[in-house]
Amino acid sequence: MRFATFVYQDCEQIGIILDGENSILCLKELFPGLSMMELIANFNSEIENKINTMKSKLQRISLDSIILESPIPNPPRGIICLGKNYKDHVKEVAKAVEKEGDIPEFPIYFSKLVDRCVGHNSNIPSHKGLTEKLDYEVELAIIIGKEGKNIPMDKVEDYIFGYTILNDISVRDSQWKHSQWFKGKSFNGTCPMGPWIVSKDELRLPLELDIKCFVNGELRQNSNTREFIFDIPYIISDFSKGITLKPGDVIATGTPAGVGMGFTPPKYINSGDQVHCYIEGIGSLKNEVL
Amino acid sequence: MRFATFVYQDCEQIGIILDGENSILCLKELFPGLSMMELIANFNSEIENKINTMKSKLQRISLDSIILESPIPNPPRGIICLGKNYKDHVKEVAKAVEKEGDIPEFPIYFSKLVDRCVGHNSNIPSHKGLTEKLDYEVELAIIIGKEGKNIPMDKVEDYIFGYTILNDISVRDSQWKHSQWFKGKSFNGTCPMGPWIVSKDELRLPLELDIKCFVNGELRQNSNTREFIFDIPYIISDFSKGITLKPGDVIATGTPAGVGMGFTPPKYINSGDQVHCYIEGIGSLKNEVL
Repeated sequence: MRFATFVYQDCEQIGIILDGENSILCLKELFPGLSMMELIANFNSEIENKINTMKSKLQRISLDSIILESPIPNPPRGIICLGKNYKDHVKEVAKAVEKEGDIPEFPIYFSKLVDRCVGHNSNIPSHKGLTEKLDYEVELAIIIGKEGKNIPMDKVEDYIFGYTILNDISVRDSQWKHSQWFKGKSFNGTCPMGPWIVSKDELRLPLELDIKCFVNGELRQNSNTREFIFDIPYIISDFSKGITLKPGDVIATGTPAGVGMGFTPPKYINSGDQVHCYIEGIGSLKNEVL
Repeated sequence: MRFATFVYQDCEQIGIILDGENSILCLKELFPGLSMMELIANFNSEIENKINTMKSKLQRISLDSIILESPIPNPPRGIICLGKNYKDHVKEVAKAVEKEGDIPEFPIYFSKLVDRCVGHNSNIPSHKGLTEKLDYEVELAIIIGKEGKNIPMDKVEDYIFGYTILNDISVRDSQWKHSQWFKGKSFNGTCPMGPWIVSKDELRLPLELDIKCFVNGELRQNSNTREFIFDIPYIISDFSKGITLKPGDVIATGTPAGVGMGFTPPKYINSGDQVHCYIEGIGSLKNEVL
């Protein structure tokens, strides 16, 4: 199933994208007032069966009549991110900052503080006057479905709810200036996420998904999630050592080569640029820089 | 005023510590069901007056009968932290990791993901089996009172609700292994905070407060907040460039010299150790490592 948060007639609600029908099934009548965070925390086979049984009776709305929000518009604990998790990206970063590009021996974790995620077709602020180095990073994001700590690698899939696309927009000058990356990753509106969450039953581990990013139609990033340095079981198992993961937590798994800072001269994004992130089996997340 | 979150007869509520009376004034009757986060977001002179007017009529409970929780038990957006914000601490870190100890030109921001803050007199887990290098860091924490972005330095005090003590317990091996500090700062139970929040009218900027940390009675850290490399107006103004701060956000302002890793050989903390953080004008935050 593909779960979305959307606005219809000024009301935010959750629904299911219907395959090949260009429409969304509203879950409002079935679960009044339920948010995506609550759906994730309570999702089980009973709820799934209820949706399937009631499918024909629920309201369907054309995708043209709705505004897609980010599936989790306000991730309460921010985003848990990985840096340098594709080998080709490690090389381009090393080139850009003139340092050695050793493949990390251990995952590099950092976080994004999130004001509000940017949904599909919404805008990314350019932060003119604060940066000249706004950059894009297409990433596969994992949505955690079940609370867990010290999760064994062979049990990781039990703790996943699904997957979505995240564009880890980065303010490079701020990211470098402050030594730790946190501030440069946390500017308002730098977390486009969507267009929806694909549940884990549609994308089984190990994931081998094409992942691409286009800027104004030009293919900039082009890889496959099989190129991860640290794969999904390793990441979740490793991060959860001593740290409890919670339903609705979002883990962004890193970006492949082709970010703006990797080009000579760099190709940063500016007002008017169209950024299109694509992941096979999930879809497209398109945003314009405002 | 000193605002506390506490448990009395199995019920979590908020109250005000009464000066020299060893008791707490319950706010439950005045503001039923109000959490500390809600109090902070809505606090104004009207609420303050209401408390002062009703003071004599509200229930008072002896501090011996309650359990103090962390004033904000679950900071929803984690903790915004500063690294290396005292010159003497920059030197000891440099010595410990055998690198040059340049004074940072810009603040180093990172974050702590928080499961649940540890209150005064509660325990810090030792994470035995996961680390041999658990360390303490006494810090002054700022509690934000008003939403703001691009806050000018001369307006910063308007955005502060108050101050508390935070012990930025750090899992040093994890902090270094993963290059960025986020995971090593985010282990469960590594965020003791309290014992209460002192409102900003009692501690006016610039703050010149003695700050100390004792382990098993031995004075390890001993400084004054006038030794900050980046002071409070600079930190809040700088961090809020492009990033919205929200009521209840917590900013930990860095730790002075004397942490465990700074000694030769290092003096890390272990099961049974008593850690006592003290800041002048706020009080004491005491915890035992379990």
